[in-house]
Amino acid sequence: MTAAALTGSPASFDVDAFLARERDRVNAALDTLAPAVAQGASHTLREAMLYALATPGKRLRPALCAAAYGVLRPGPVPDAVYRLACAVEIVHTYSLVHDDLPCMDDDDLRRGRPTVHVVYGCGTALLAGAALIPAAVRVLDGAARELGLDAPARGRLVAELCGAGGALGMVGGQWLDLRAEQPDARVDAEGLERIHRLKTGALLAASLRIGARAAGADEARLEALTAYGRELGLAFQIVDDVLDVTRTADELGKTAGKDVDAGKATYPSLFGLQRAREMAVERMGRAVDALRAAGIHSAELEALAAYVLERGR
Amino acid sequence: MTAAALTGSPASFDVDAFLARERDRVNAALDTLAPAVAQGASHTLREAMLYALATPGKRLRPALCAAAYGVLRPGPVPDAVYRLACAVEIVHTYSLVHDDLPCMDDDDLRRGRPTVHVVYGCGTALLAGAALIPAAVRVLDGAARELGLDAPARGRLVAELCGAGGALGMVGGQWLDLRAEQPDARVDAEGLERIHRLKTGALLAASLRIGARAAGADEARLEALTAYGRELGLAFQIVDDVLDVTRTADELGKTAGKDVDAGKATYPSLFGLQRAREMAVERMGRAVDALRAAGIHSAELEALAAYVLERGR
Repeated sequence: MTAAALTGSPASFDVDAFLARERDRVNAALDTLAPAVAQGASHTLREAMLYALATPGKRLRPALCAAAYGVLRPGPVPDAVYRLACAVEIVHTYSLVHDDLPCMDDDDLRRGRPTVHVVYGCGTALLAGAALIPAAVRVLDGAARELGLDAPARGRLVAELCGAGGALGMVGGQWLDLRAEQPDARVDAEGLERIHRLKTGALLAASLRIGARAAGADEARLEALTAYGRELGLAFQIVDDVLDVTRTADELGKTAGKDVDAGKATYPSLFGLQRAREMAVERMGRAVDALRAAGIHSAELEALAAYVLERGR
Repeated sequence: MTAAALTGSPASFDVDAFLARERDRVNAALDTLAPAVAQGASHTLREAMLYALATPGKRLRPALCAAAYGVLRPGPVPDAVYRLACAVEIVHTYSLVHDDLPCMDDDDLRRGRPTVHVVYGCGTALLAGAALIPAAVRVLDGAARELGLDAPARGRLVAELCGAGGALGMVGGQWLDLRAEQPDARVDAEGLERIHRLKTGALLAASLRIGARAAGADEARLEALTAYGRELGLAFQIVDDVLDVTRTADELGKTAGKDVDAGKATYPSLFGLQRAREMAVERMGRAVDALRAAGIHSAELEALAAYVLERGR
C-alpha cells in the first residue's frame, strides 16, 4: 500500500511539489530571520548559529505549523505564519546541535555536513545552541505580532513552545533516550513510546498547536491536531529507527547503524523490521483518523503524513 | 574606605542581616518553585535540575530584582516578587551548569560542591541546563500573573529575560570569554569590559529591569537601574578576578588561580591588583551615582553594591 492510498490523498495533489514549496518558503523565512536570530553574536558564535540554522532539513515542523494554520484559514498562508513556524524549527535546530555533541550522541555528520561542534568546537556549539532558545521565543513573539495576535494570544504561543521544548517535552525525551543507551538500560515497548512521545511528539504537536492557535482554533481542533502530531511523531521515530538499520551513511546523511552498534532499544530491535514498518503505517493511520474524526480534511497534513511514511520505504 | 562609607549607607542599616534575609526569601521561593521547574523530568534529570537549583549562592540577582521592585513600591515586597526574581536566578543557574562543563571552563567544584556534570554526567548536565531555560520563562510568566500584570506587561518581562539571556547578553559574553582563553587571544581593557558587560552585566541589569517593570517603573528609572546594574556587573567581575588571584580554593569554594594558570586577560593581569581594586570602587561609585541622579535612594540597592565590593577585601 502506498502512503497516498493509506491517506487517501486525491491523486491530483502533488505531494513532492507541495513539500518542495513548503521547504522553500521555510528556508526563505529562516533567511529573513537569521540576522535577528544571531543579533549581537560576534565572530564564530554568529557563524555557528547561522551554520546550524542552514542545516539542510526537511523543515517538517514549520510545514506542519503552516498547514495547521491553513486548516482554519483557507487560502494562501501569509509569510508571517512561516516566520512564526520558524520559532519551532529554531528550537529543533538547537536540539540537534546539542544532541550531536560528544557528551550526547557524538555525531560528526548531520545531513551530510560536518556537525556544528566539528566545525566550530564544542564550547561554541554549546553556546550557539543555548543562544537559539531565547532567540526562538523572540522570533515567535515577533511573528505573532505581525499576525496581529494580541498579548494574551502571544503569551499562549510562548507557553506552547516552552512547554514542548523543556523537561516536559523534548529535553525530557532526550534524557530518556540518553539513559536508554546505558549498557544496563532495559527499555520495553512502553518505555520506547514514552521516549519518542516526549523527544519527537511534543515539538511536532506544538508546531501544529502554534499554527492552529495563531489561526484562532477551538479546543476540539487543537486536540485533534495534537493527537495527529503525537501519532505522526511516533511514526516518524519508528521510520527513523528502520532507516538506521536499512540505509547507509551516504543515503542517510549521518552515521548509520549507530543504534545497533550501541545495542540500543529501537522499534526494529524490539519488534523486528517488518513489524516496525507495519507499526509506522498503523500510527499514521491513527494520525489521519484523528484529523478526520474532528472534521479536518487537509490535503497538506495528509501529504505530510504520507511523506513521513514514504521515507522508510 | 569601607563600602558603607563609599555608599553612604546609614549606619542603622544592617547589611549582613538584610543580605541573609534576602537569601532566605529567595531560597524559600526557589523551594516553592522547584517542583514546577522540574515538572515532567524523570529520575536523575529531575535530580540534576534540583541539585543545580540548590547550589548555595549569593542570590544576588533575585535580591536586585526585589530591591528594584521595592524602590517603586515602598513597603513589604510580596512573595510573588521573589518568585518572579527566581526566573533570573534559574537562567543564571543554567549558565553555571553549562559553564562548568568540560567543553567550557571544566570546573569540578562550584561553591564547595561537586559540579552537576561531576555528579550526574555531562549529558544529563547539558540537558538539565537546557531544560532550565524554558522553565525560567514559565516561572516568570506565572509569577507575573500572580502579581496581576496584564499580558502585554508579562510579554515585556519575557522579552527582558530572553534578551539578556541570549547572544545579545549572557551567552554572547560567555562566548567572548571562552575565546579570550585561547592561546592566541589578545584582549585589551575595552575587550575585557565588553566581555563582562555581556556576560555579567546584561543579566544583572535585566534582574533590576524585571523588578522595576513589575512595579510599573517609568523609562527614567528603568534607565537609571540599568546603568546601576551594568556598573555593578563590572565591579562584580573585577572583584571576581581579584579573588581568583588572592584567595585559596577553600575560601573560594571553587578552583582558585585558574585565570592565572590559563594566562587569561583579567583586571589584575591588565592593570595590577591595586589598580583593579580601585577600579572596582570607582565602578561602584558610578553605580550608586546613577541611582541618586535619578532620585533613587535605596538602602537595599546601596547595600547590595557594598556587598559586592566587600567580597573583594
